[in-house]
Amino acid sequence: MPLDHQGPLGRLRQGHEELILRLLRTHGPLSRGELGRLSGLSRTTLYDIVAALADGGAVVGTTPVPAERRRGRPVETLTLHPDAGQAIGIDFARRAVHVAAVNVAHEVIGSASQAHAADLGWEDRVDLAERLVAGLAGGTLRLGALSGIGVGVVGPVDDVPPDDTPRAARPALADLPLLLRKRFGVPVLLDNNTRLAALAEATWGAAAGVQDVLYLRLSYGVGGGLVVGGALHRGAHGLSGEFGHITAEPEGRRCSCGKDGCLETVASIGAVLDAHGTAADLPAFLAALPHDPAAAQVLDTVGTRIGTVLAAVCNAIGPDVTVLGGELAAAGPALFRPVERALLEHLMPISRSRADLRAAALGEAGGALGAIALVLHESPLLARYPAPDSLE
Amino acid sequence: MPLDHQGPLGRLRQGHEELILRLLRTHGPLSRGELGRLSGLSRTTLYDIVAALADGGAVVGTTPVPAERRRGRPVETLTLHPDAGQAIGIDFARRAVHVAAVNVAHEVIGSASQAHAADLGWEDRVDLAERLVAGLAGGTLRLGALSGIGVGVVGPVDDVPPDDTPRAARPALADLPLLLRKRFGVPVLLDNNTRLAALAEATWGAAAGVQDVLYLRLSYGVGGGLVVGGALHRGAHGLSGEFGHITAEPEGRRCSCGKDGCLETVASIGAVLDAHGTAADLPAFLAALPHDPAAAQVLDTVGTRIGTVLAAVCNAIGPDVTVLGGELAAAGPALFRPVERALLEHLMPISRSRADLRAAALGEAGGALGAIALVLHESPLLARYPAPDSLE
Repeated sequence: MPLDHQGPLGRLRQGHEELILRLLRTHGPLSRGELGRLSGLSRTTLYDIVAALADGGAVVGTTPVPAERRRGRPVETLTLHPDAGQAIGIDFARRAVHVAAVNVAHEVIGSASQAHAADLGWEDRVDLAERLVAGLAGGTLRLGALSGIGVGVVGPVDDVPPDDTPRAARPALADLPLLLRKRFGVPVLLDNNTRLAALAEATWGAAAGVQDVLYLRLSYGVGGGLVVGGALHRGAHGLSGEFGHITAEPEGRRCSCGKDGCLETVASIGAVLDAHGTAADLPAFLAALPHDPAAAQVLDTVGTRIGTVLAAVCNAIGPDVTVLGGELAAAGPALFRPVERALLEHLMPISRSRADLRAAALGEAGGALGAIALVLHESPLLARYPAPDSLE
Repeated sequence: MPLDHQGPLGRLRQGHEELILRLLRTHGPLSRGELGRLSGLSRTTLYDIVAALADGGAVVGTTPVPAERRRGRPVETLTLHPDAGQAIGIDFARRAVHVAAVNVAHEVIGSASQAHAADLGWEDRVDLAERLVAGLAGGTLRLGALSGIGVGVVGPVDDVPPDDTPRAARPALADLPLLLRKRFGVPVLLDNNTRLAALAEATWGAAAGVQDVLYLRLSYGVGGGLVVGGALHRGAHGLSGEFGHITAEPEGRRCSCGKDGCLETVASIGAVLDAHGTAADLPAFLAALPHDPAAAQVLDTVGTRIGTVLAAVCNAIGPDVTVLGGELAAAGPALFRPVERALLEHLMPISRSRADLRAAALGEAGGALGAIALVLHESPLLARYPAPDSLE
């Protein structure tokens, strides 16, 4: 993981670099003299930092052709490299690869998806991702200028092992960062794709800019993620956001995780279809919903369970906004109404007026967008180029 | 609230000040020349920053008497002011005031408590706190050198209003920071005392140094707090950690909060005594426990409810350590065993081997100690004097 384990002096130096980059971003092109005055750094330190940033390609110097004659040689001005700060996100979902990319201004410049067989190998998935990325935004993305790749994967992501450590518990995943780094030549950050979707909703989606967000995804599995203080919350051993495995029915069915009565055994797409009994798949169920009281009744029961579990989590962590996503959220009010009713019933009364339940906004691109958000938040390289609106 | 709302230039300057203070803390006394070399700041900036810090009393200059003859005038060295960095914590509990203090090295130098009637007014409680503080550590605490006061109070603490804003919803509390600031003349930080106890356990107690901690307090009320990434988690509107109001028995008793079946209706001291039926108070209940199967049975049922609720929260947020505190925790294994059994039963199987349930270590001083920890973490004044072990 490209996390920072430098000592105090390394950190001090990085702080100076970040300061210079921030000044260039906020003020635009500046001369060394102006940078010195604005930063308070000594001439020696400043020249040293600028030289390193120029060597690394983050900063470029331009000497303007003087529009009018002046004395002495023209003063070189420094600017951020226009390509620095591009990032891509790749979501390796169960049966599809989703990719998205942002430019230097951290605007999303494109996203793409392609379905594949569930048993496709990692080499082939990475090939697929590379082709999708190459086609993004009409090829305007320069792979050579990438600052980082964020990657979403299915299942819990514990501390990612070093690239060269084969991992018995999850050998395929352990090799993925290395595979991607070889292919793209930049740092790779990996996390659970559902948690990344939570971060995406809090960055660009239904809860954009909200500091504390609870995101629940209702799909073939049930999971979620927490954004705490604007950052993705991981928890010990990467096991936060497992709302699907909170016990919803103590005497309920055995869950794939091994315990009984998890929310996932009640609120997954499969569980909903089972409870309904006749719809062949989710589209058929959703199509029948407006004129099928049995379907509405199933969602009422399911929504009540969901709302009760959400209330427990909300009482514990007090999110500003709760976001419901995943394919099942397309059921709309037939699901949201019972969820909200049970949520309010089991919230502390003092919290009820502040409950804010929203539908997810980003759909299937959420994981890839969240992977980008992860890179923008966490990469020591990209953190140096904060988006303009993230500056204090 | 003494939070920082400066613009970028103010922040830049504060960053430089923090850098100088950190260097003095880690390196000990330094000359201006050494500070310039270590900080990378220009001579002008450095002298300006040092002058401001000396004016504010944070830094003092000493000119050593040369032990041997040297040429030129002796070089002044700069050190942190020995009294800067003292802080006190005050916990205004329902029927007692607890105080604690730390010295410049952030070592706890003393704590004290005094019980009072539940209806004692705020002026009198503050008087009581002041007398307790004055007696701390044999009077070695210099009130004039205080950097900040952290204060714990009962009940939810929303955004604290400005000092001069009377607050209809909680008028007594709204005046408290002003009252304390007038009395002690330093910034006051206020939070819920149970949440502060969580921070204390994660700073000096059962989970010292642990990043993600869930703390549940079983007393006459049931509450708790979350430490996330080493910092106190507040949640939206200051309503995080309300584990006592998670529904534990859907058909259960009406809670003081207004909803039904809250954990507090099952696991508070009052609920335990009610369920037992004969013990007059908690000491009597605890004394009877070793030879009273009915008491053990009550705790088995209560512990099961507690563990089930804790598991839901753990699945959601994945803490490293779960701490049980409050007077009821003194029941020991008769309570902890059923809690742990239910916790493991309802945790995701993958998380079970990592569950770490501990008894709180700080007792009734926890709130006051947590109030100090809050000041050390959050005061813009004290944040400039990080404890040595908190430095990267």
